[in-house]
Amino acid sequence: MFKLLIHGGAGAVRRDHYSNQEISEYKKSLKEVLDFGVEQLAHEQSAEDVVVKVVSLLEDNPLFNSGRGSVLTSDGRVQMDAAVMCGQDGSCGAVTLAESIKNPVQMAQWVMRKTPHRLLGGRDVDLLAKAQGFQMEDVDYFVTEKRREQLAAAKAKGAIQLDHDSEDHSQTVGAVALDVFGNVAAATSTGGLTNKMPGRVSDSAIVGAGTFADNQSLAFSATGTGDVFIQNMSGFDAHALMVYSKKSLSEACDEVLEKVKVRGGRGGVIALRANGESYMAFNSLGMFRGQMDSEMKWEVAIF
Amino acid sequence: MFKLLIHGGAGAVRRDHYSNQEISEYKKSLKEVLDFGVEQLAHEQSAEDVVVKVVSLLEDNPLFNSGRGSVLTSDGRVQMDAAVMCGQDGSCGAVTLAESIKNPVQMAQWVMRKTPHRLLGGRDVDLLAKAQGFQMEDVDYFVTEKRREQLAAAKAKGAIQLDHDSEDHSQTVGAVALDVFGNVAAATSTGGLTNKMPGRVSDSAIVGAGTFADNQSLAFSATGTGDVFIQNMSGFDAHALMVYSKKSLSEACDEVLEKVKVRGGRGGVIALRANGESYMAFNSLGMFRGQMDSEMKWEVAIF
Repeated sequence: MFKLLIHGGAGAVRRDHYSNQEISEYKKSLKEVLDFGVEQLAHEQSAEDVVVKVVSLLEDNPLFNSGRGSVLTSDGRVQMDAAVMCGQDGSCGAVTLAESIKNPVQMAQWVMRKTPHRLLGGRDVDLLAKAQGFQMEDVDYFVTEKRREQLAAAKAKGAIQLDHDSEDHSQTVGAVALDVFGNVAAATSTGGLTNKMPGRVSDSAIVGAGTFADNQSLAFSATGTGDVFIQNMSGFDAHALMVYSKKSLSEACDEVLEKVKVRGGRGGVIALRANGESYMAFNSLGMFRGQMDSEMKWEVAIF
Repeated sequence: MFKLLIHGGAGAVRRDHYSNQEISEYKKSLKEVLDFGVEQLAHEQSAEDVVVKVVSLLEDNPLFNSGRGSVLTSDGRVQMDAAVMCGQDGSCGAVTLAESIKNPVQMAQWVMRKTPHRLLGGRDVDLLAKAQGFQMEDVDYFVTEKRREQLAAAKAKGAIQLDHDSEDHSQTVGAVALDVFGNVAAATSTGGLTNKMPGRVSDSAIVGAGTFADNQSLAFSATGTGDVFIQNMSGFDAHALMVYSKKSLSEACDEVLEKVKVRGGRGGVIALRANGESYMAFNSLGMFRGQMDSEMKWEVAIF
């Protein structure tokens, strides 16, 4: 048995903001990523490797807010965060404030496997990635015309655009997987918020906030009002609710999202247990999402 | 009723590494900081302001590993982290990878109070602090001869020095306070690990890892093997153990330290409840620590 869930961000995703063609492009991209990931899981790839590969594909896709197509800071730069965590042994790695790494999630996996540290950031992580032979890209690769327009619109309104706020379409990406060995893993990657302050670290870089995995509880990837997910330690909270309070997967995820709402945030989560049980939920208007399992049953949805 | 606990780091602090004069210097510094903080609490200052002021004093003291006297990265630089959290409403702020801010904990408080974000880092946080009028310092201010020697010794051994590892004396600092209004707060500040990789973010910058505060559970500041405290989300875990599993303050802190040990780490915590109950514990050889309350009962200890 194996299973894969992915998301491409949650927020004020309104049907009337998208043409039929855009909707079908998003759905096609999500389905292609599911097909690729499930093929990998069927070939006995580990959940860790699959979430990293799947999130890499989403980073490469300019439709989503991670890697290529990341949203812009208030001074027009790309600053990217990513994290990965393994449910088998709790090993984890993350990067923050990366500006030139093509696939931040791959560097997060390298931090996990090759360093004694858990989170590396800033200019140093770009220099280290380059020295280690990771593919680097320049501003022209990452920045799309759509993101320039979104920043201009946000600045005109003087507002920091939370994920999918109003017309914003900033799609943090993530994946949770269960492999044939019974292990779960989670990965998340983001360009953050349109018009965010330079230097802002998101929940996607923080294990226990936007990303978490433990075989005894759940694999978890979040999207939404990241600053509240940091404050609430939402990923670890879902774990604690299941292990300490014996809540079910859906109860834990619903409670975590409700706590985000209480603090003025919103967003969505995808979650998966080692027994194959899964749950996707959001308290925003929509969430780009999909899931597929070893029976080849699949679903892709936005609203 | 009010109360203040402080720490100046936990680790392999061996009595025979210190002269009698050094011991009395450390104890004198800790007592002066307690006196100052308790005076502030007696004058009805908030727990939030007191932990920030107290940690600022420890940052200014080159005996400890934060602000002036921070340990050095493998390439000989100072990169500082700090966080603050309020138990009343869960508001929090943090900075990471600061290289020029005299008092990183004061910038963490600014992030909390003046921005929509929770964690700012890298070169951008230095630029922002400067633009906001915070006192900035250059390398000569932060780097002491003792830290240069410690880096040279660590590099000669090819080892990353965890807090207080063997001859290392790298003293992360922190404070937890209860004010006369019944609110608790926590703050932590550090230069990290001697010979750490450039760009490494410590648990001191991550709310829920090395710093946590909630009036319904505890105020918490940790020191030790930071990468494990990040992985374990130790601060939030202590909170969850108390709220969800109904563990006592000491049971929660002991369990959190035991989990750090299971993953190969060690360290210490100071913790305080809104009812005035407090606890200090460490599974390393020693922890620089002190506490003082509204009855003017006080204690300063290292081993």
